[in-house]
Amino acid sequence: MSNQNENKKDSKQAKAAIRAGDVTFQLHKTAETFSDWYDAVMDAAEIVDRRYPVKGCPVLRPYGFFMHNAIMREVEDRYAEVGVEQALFPTVIPESFLNKEADHIKGFGAECFWIDRAGNDKLEEPLALRPTSETAIYYMFNKWVRSFRDLPLKVHQTCTVFRYETKNTKPLIRVREIPWNEAHTCHATKVEALDMMNTYWKVCMKIFEQELCFTGKVLQRAPWDKFAGAEHTEVLDVIMPCGRVLQTAGIHYLGQKFAKVFDINFLDQNNTKQLAEMTCCGVSTRVLACALAIHGDDKGLILPPLISQFQVVLIPCGGKKEAEVYAPLQEMQTRLRNMKIRCTIDDSKQSMGEKLFYWEMKGAPLRIELGPRDLETQQFVLVARDLGKDGKKTCPIADLEKVIAQELEAFKDRLRAKAMASHKDHITIARTLDEIQEVITKKGGFAQIPFFTMEAGAKEAEEVIKEKCGGAEIRGFWPEEKCEGEICAVTGKPATVWAYVARAY
Amino acid sequence: MSNQNENKKDSKQAKAAIRAGDVTFQLHKTAETFSDWYDAVMDAAEIVDRRYPVKGCPVLRPYGFFMHNAIMREVEDRYAEVGVEQALFPTVIPESFLNKEADHIKGFGAECFWIDRAGNDKLEEPLALRPTSETAIYYMFNKWVRSFRDLPLKVHQTCTVFRYETKNTKPLIRVREIPWNEAHTCHATKVEALDMMNTYWKVCMKIFEQELCFTGKVLQRAPWDKFAGAEHTEVLDVIMPCGRVLQTAGIHYLGQKFAKVFDINFLDQNNTKQLAEMTCCGVSTRVLACALAIHGDDKGLILPPLISQFQVVLIPCGGKKEAEVYAPLQEMQTRLRNMKIRCTIDDSKQSMGEKLFYWEMKGAPLRIELGPRDLETQQFVLVARDLGKDGKKTCPIADLEKVIAQELEAFKDRLRAKAMASHKDHITIARTLDEIQEVITKKGGFAQIPFFTMEAGAKEAEEVIKEKCGGAEIRGFWPEEKCEGEICAVTGKPATVWAYVARAY
Repeated sequence: MSNQNENKKDSKQAKAAIRAGDVTFQLHKTAETFSDWYDAVMDAAEIVDRRYPVKGCPVLRPYGFFMHNAIMREVEDRYAEVGVEQALFPTVIPESFLNKEADHIKGFGAECFWIDRAGNDKLEEPLALRPTSETAIYYMFNKWVRSFRDLPLKVHQTCTVFRYETKNTKPLIRVREIPWNEAHTCHATKVEALDMMNTYWKVCMKIFEQELCFTGKVLQRAPWDKFAGAEHTEVLDVIMPCGRVLQTAGIHYLGQKFAKVFDINFLDQNNTKQLAEMTCCGVSTRVLACALAIHGDDKGLILPPLISQFQVVLIPCGGKKEAEVYAPLQEMQTRLRNMKIRCTIDDSKQSMGEKLFYWEMKGAPLRIELGPRDLETQQFVLVARDLGKDGKKTCPIADLEKVIAQELEAFKDRLRAKAMASHKDHITIARTLDEIQEVITKKGGFAQIPFFTMEAGAKEAEEVIKEKCGGAEIRGFWPEEKCEGEICAVTGKPATVWAYVARAY
Repeated sequence: MSNQNENKKDSKQAKAAIRAGDVTFQLHKTAETFSDWYDAVMDAAEIVDRRYPVKGCPVLRPYGFFMHNAIMREVEDRYAEVGVEQALFPTVIPESFLNKEADHIKGFGAECFWIDRAGNDKLEEPLALRPTSETAIYYMFNKWVRSFRDLPLKVHQTCTVFRYETKNTKPLIRVREIPWNEAHTCHATKVEALDMMNTYWKVCMKIFEQELCFTGKVLQRAPWDKFAGAEHTEVLDVIMPCGRVLQTAGIHYLGQKFAKVFDINFLDQNNTKQLAEMTCCGVSTRVLACALAIHGDDKGLILPPLISQFQVVLIPCGGKKEAEVYAPLQEMQTRLRNMKIRCTIDDSKQSMGEKLFYWEMKGAPLRIELGPRDLETQQFVLVARDLGKDGKKTCPIADLEKVIAQELEAFKDRLRAKAMASHKDHITIARTLDEIQEVITKKGGFAQIPFFTMEAGAKEAEEVIKEKCGGAEIRGFWPEEKCEGEICAVTGKPATVWAYVARAY
């Protein structure tokens, strides 16, 4: 049981970190406290190792990689269902490609890592490590799209992108090597392209809300804040426990901007040349960061089953008589594995207390305890990570499969309900600058404000908010969400739209 | 059915290429002929797109990515079974890391892409794009290994490595961006490390022989030809249809060489500091290249089921009455999907001949044909790709599941048997330079030669072979395979070992 060994070896260190008080976690405390909890959990649960000596390039350790990989595979499977096919494009992009779309290079030029030489040769043209793959992929789309019969063209890839992040880095959240998935599509019409935006949201929200049990606010970014090269950008902003918000998915309507510069055109049914309508979507390790941050508590992680390497941990009890339950536990483990439940028996030499402490910190959703006395009544004890020992249940061993299936669903339902309620509770209407400041600095989350326009003058109004409300910014709006009969919280003009204001994580 | 559309659109182009005679494939023809077949199939079957304008950086298109991904997932699953855990390490490696192991930098220094700048900054230390990840991973192993309890430490990653290839590039075989999987392990003893080498071989050969239905010769490389930084290197050399051999897996016993320079040590049970014993293993897209090259024929690909996006293609027959079989075909498709068979119905508007041509070129293992008359007798027609129409079978629809399961196994068995026989047939004992030349230039494959030693003087003897036998080289030997009572084919000295001589692909 190599996993067991792996688990044992650093648990001491992890426990020490938690006991030393590094790991504390209370909703809506200052950013510093959440940040400390986050870092401590990254180390203690062995999610990433931050000691690799290149800034922003942490190692995804097996326990953390399992989680990220589970999310990426879920994205891949959902894309397969809606006809987005997986491919793999080159990492290196010729400088001239990046320069083609003016906004794009303006947005990403300062973030690129550049290769000028290889072996003993100077390269003829510098190559960028992809900061995102539009330009590499659209060069190929130019060759693949000829006729309306080639459309829609929908591809995605799971890969790593590279951005020269100059701010403070944070594991999974703000890094220089970003493991992610990006999808890119071409369509014959704007209607189809906009419909694809909805498909992205369905794919993303199914994973975020149903599997990872968290949600956020879907927003359209302000025009000055969109993806470099997009017509408009939609994002999911997730409210972190510290009250700041984190962009967790980026879905971009590109219109014909890239089609124009990469000459992605097709002959329509009337044999007329048309430019393609395009979209793209990116989801990175930030999805994982949110899942960990939203559900965790002061004992450590609470993992949604999708990303938990062990969904059920079986722990033998009974002190010296412990060995009596090894065979029954193994039988239970086999039964669970037959139903594709990932589980492990912790038969390490550590004390019961240490084991519970360890698995709570690691976030395993369910724990089964079995002692010799339980055998007499053919029952086992079940503890859900979120409820702790107060939620202990005794269940018949005969019903194992049914109980575990039900309890995993109930566990997810509880996580989801709690996260949804907290999200909803942290969107607060604010009608004056004072009220905005109050929301931002005291309660955290979003201030939902009546706003005069997202067009001319809006950016100037945002400057006022930034200055007076603790650095909060306009995170976006939703076009269908009209605001009538209200007065703009910043300018006093008649409001036309609800704007969402928050501090960025 | 977006896949259908995808399939339709380029089939014309593909057929044109094959008909134009670009696609010919006959075993043991000259390298040029095989090379042309290989390139034509890459394009026609949409495996890679070679038009990305950076040398050696082809795009893995969805049909090709599916294959590579299937192999990588198989590797990942097999590693999980033997306790090798998946992680993800950074792509960039500080120059100083690469310089640590003298042989390693000597071997890879000239193959590195270098990053000197990012954004507007010059980096303090140049970063290499990993040509392989020993130095990045072993920097972390230094931190993870403390005591014998931390051992064995076994991790792997599926990623891309980068090598500045100056020779002619070839899709999947010789590229600058290499998608691959690499495993790295630390052990307490040499015995355990060498045992890990056997585990790698079990993992690899199970996939190559059982799933991908090809084999090769397992060899230990000559001392002058080993991996840069290894104590010794074991490889699988696969005989390509042109008679040249391709290295397809590299399994390296590193001993304590890297442990020394990265200071990877542990306290043993006696509390004594020991250096770790290490191994590594790499498998790249070359595995896929072999699977495609070995089984293909002059109609195109013949895909082992593991890597075939569609294992069964269902084709409606009956001309104008074709629509009558749509519903029954869909029912059959549902039944097959319920047993996890990947299948598709080709209800495109193309002619029957075009459809058969297309799916034969794409390599789908089994084809089901169903017409209105077949419905009367409740039977379907089954054609296996390798047997073609001469192997047509009529089977009861009621037995669909059983038939398909059996036929897929039989299909694999036939591919494997043919590949194994061809492999065996192309290892020929040669006892003189003339005989070696005859084998190399006429028959192809390996000349198995009595050889005096793999130590001092062996490299000089290899030079003689290279010069006199059409550029053939010593590909390696197997230590346990002693050669007694024979005379060295090159030096006339008493032979001690069988050496395997071939031309490299």
